[in-house]
Amino acid sequence: MTISKLEYDKRLVKVRERMSVQGLSGILVCDPANLYYLIGYNAWSFYTPQFLFVPIEGNLIFFAREMDARGAFHTAWLSQESVVGYPETYVHRTDRHPFDWAGAVLRDQGCLDSGSRVGVELDAHFFSPKAYFSLVAALPEWELVDSRDLVNWVRLVKSPSEIDLMRAAATVTNAAMQAAIEHIRVGARQCDVAAQISRAQCSGTAKYGGDYPAIVPMLPTGEAASAPHLTWTNREFVDDEAVVVEIAGVHQRYHAPLARTIMLGRPSAALQSLAAATGEGIEAVLGTVRAGISARELASVWNAEISKHGLEKASRIGYSIGIGYPPDWGERTVSLRVEEDTVLQENMTFHLICGMWMDNYGYEVSEPIRVTVDGVEIFTDVPRGLISKGVRS
Amino acid sequence: MTISKLEYDKRLVKVRERMSVQGLSGILVCDPANLYYLIGYNAWSFYTPQFLFVPIEGNLIFFAREMDARGAFHTAWLSQESVVGYPETYVHRTDRHPFDWAGAVLRDQGCLDSGSRVGVELDAHFFSPKAYFSLVAALPEWELVDSRDLVNWVRLVKSPSEIDLMRAAATVTNAAMQAAIEHIRVGARQCDVAAQISRAQCSGTAKYGGDYPAIVPMLPTGEAASAPHLTWTNREFVDDEAVVVEIAGVHQRYHAPLARTIMLGRPSAALQSLAAATGEGIEAVLGTVRAGISARELASVWNAEISKHGLEKASRIGYSIGIGYPPDWGERTVSLRVEEDTVLQENMTFHLICGMWMDNYGYEVSEPIRVTVDGVEIFTDVPRGLISKGVRS
Repeated sequence: MTISKLEYDKRLVKVRERMSVQGLSGILVCDPANLYYLIGYNAWSFYTPQFLFVPIEGNLIFFAREMDARGAFHTAWLSQESVVGYPETYVHRTDRHPFDWAGAVLRDQGCLDSGSRVGVELDAHFFSPKAYFSLVAALPEWELVDSRDLVNWVRLVKSPSEIDLMRAAATVTNAAMQAAIEHIRVGARQCDVAAQISRAQCSGTAKYGGDYPAIVPMLPTGEAASAPHLTWTNREFVDDEAVVVEIAGVHQRYHAPLARTIMLGRPSAALQSLAAATGEGIEAVLGTVRAGISARELASVWNAEISKHGLEKASRIGYSIGIGYPPDWGERTVSLRVEEDTVLQENMTFHLICGMWMDNYGYEVSEPIRVTVDGVEIFTDVPRGLISKGVRS
Repeated sequence: MTISKLEYDKRLVKVRERMSVQGLSGILVCDPANLYYLIGYNAWSFYTPQFLFVPIEGNLIFFAREMDARGAFHTAWLSQESVVGYPETYVHRTDRHPFDWAGAVLRDQGCLDSGSRVGVELDAHFFSPKAYFSLVAALPEWELVDSRDLVNWVRLVKSPSEIDLMRAAATVTNAAMQAAIEHIRVGARQCDVAAQISRAQCSGTAKYGGDYPAIVPMLPTGEAASAPHLTWTNREFVDDEAVVVEIAGVHQRYHAPLARTIMLGRPSAALQSLAAATGEGIEAVLGTVRAGISARELASVWNAEISKHGLEKASRIGYSIGIGYPPDWGERTVSLRVEEDTVLQENMTFHLICGMWMDNYGYEVSEPIRVTVDGVEIFTDVPRGLISKGVRS
């Protein structure tokens, strides 16, 4: 399973159509997920500045640190002459920025006319204000404007190949969640459980090799389960505490995230009723998902269902997923919430996540899903509901 | 082993001294490693905007997403009233930014006089141009200037507690590298080896629980070893190829990174001589390190040594290390290269990394080190030199 050159061509066409609509003569792309989507480039090089120049017509140019540029052909389809390495003397210097150099190269090449409107990813991870100011200074004839996550929005509806990759990722998710369920037990250290989950994520299955997740295993436990993004400690699990597990399986950078809550011993009455209410909420949403429904309507169904139990949730119940790089496996486009008007289309994919964080406990259940013409495909295959590891005698 | 409140107080004093030197009435800190250093806050919440306000005197205020703010007390020493959660309706919206809201709160509180110079981390990961423009708009009376990685520079010299944490991290590194050496063999899938390394990194040792590394295991193999930052695939290792392994052990977010090269089968003559030359280079540098030597001098010793073998290296031979969060375990301050004037002091810590990337092969050897008064402490304990996994008959 690989993405064909034809599919990369189609992606570029869609991006350029959107550029045309937004009146952009070019865009500069920094987001690693967008780079992977457009040219297949895949390396842990995003801690130093890099960008892809996409003109409305003509050749793409990818700028990366010299040591990374020379190996870009291992993963990207771009010809080696379209990959330009900036000198090592620009790395982590206080008096200069790599984009001073890259901007000067772009200007020398006269790629675009003076006065061209060029989009930059003003709210992307790994695009700093200093990087932006370097480009502004190096390319004074260009008008740099916010591309408004242009490529991210093109990624929203998945192709059949992408769906296949997400199904493959979900088989890794299943294995990783089984590892969590198997190894979470009273007396086990949190770090040793995280190790088993991580091992399963990296290995993947016999058929589909695993990849690193954009977010490490989350294991908030006991009272810490009231906060969703705490990572593990070396503390041992104890009896009568609940463990929230939020993880993703990954294949070729496509993610299928999943959350479950595992109970060691006897759940409190409060946790049991929270789990039941949340379960009814997620079932109601899953029963409503189909092409033509808006994100707002899904959120309303959720709100109506949990309000029957006297509950409310301030945060969104999901977000678009696909390709992911640290620090996030979300695409930063559509969120499932009442403020979101986007109408769901076939082959949009979401992490539907119903996380309820109370004062001193929490409960999460989620599914990675695909919107179909008349319903929903759930990628993973793990029973929903509070997972009990049994009561010790 | 935990950092005492007294040590946090000392750190804050050093930061404020530096603020005073730079003429700053306050700083806004986004870098997750700087947040951990100053307040102990540790969660995977940096994919949404967050910052710590540090005035030259008075109380700190930490702004984070509402769902993360409520759990900040689990790791940070700040009182709960010093942690302010911004509303969920500001998350991933195209028409607003969380720092619109946070900036308005800061302004309302009248924390600083009009005209105050306030430093922001213009080249930090996770501080976007949009975030910057939000602050500029929300705090018009403040003059926002580049803090020039102020907190990062304060982190450069480590305390005895930090050194202890790095020594603990190095025991995890030793175990993780042993896992790599054990599991890299002909016929093993790269992803399964990455899984074993990751398992060892997360578990840590019986004494010191592991933590997630800022960079996932790097395993560039065969021809791909000519590029340093490629991650693993599901391909099987084959005979007569070299595998570059670059990994870190982590304890309480402190990193001890290490690189070694493992040969399956018979090394080429070219690789053998590259390994020998690189080995002489790193020994020469290790023999020169001590307090009072400049970064420039170390790089010169390296250059002189490898030039005897007709080699040169464009990139730096090391960088400052300590606390790390994805995407980087480097501190983004001192690099070991001829352009760097910084004089080494006792308890500076570096990843001394001698990576040689040739046209179709590569070799890496490194050590995480501490500068001592009269020499060097090497944190890890893995023999240097090309590691042979033996020749198959």
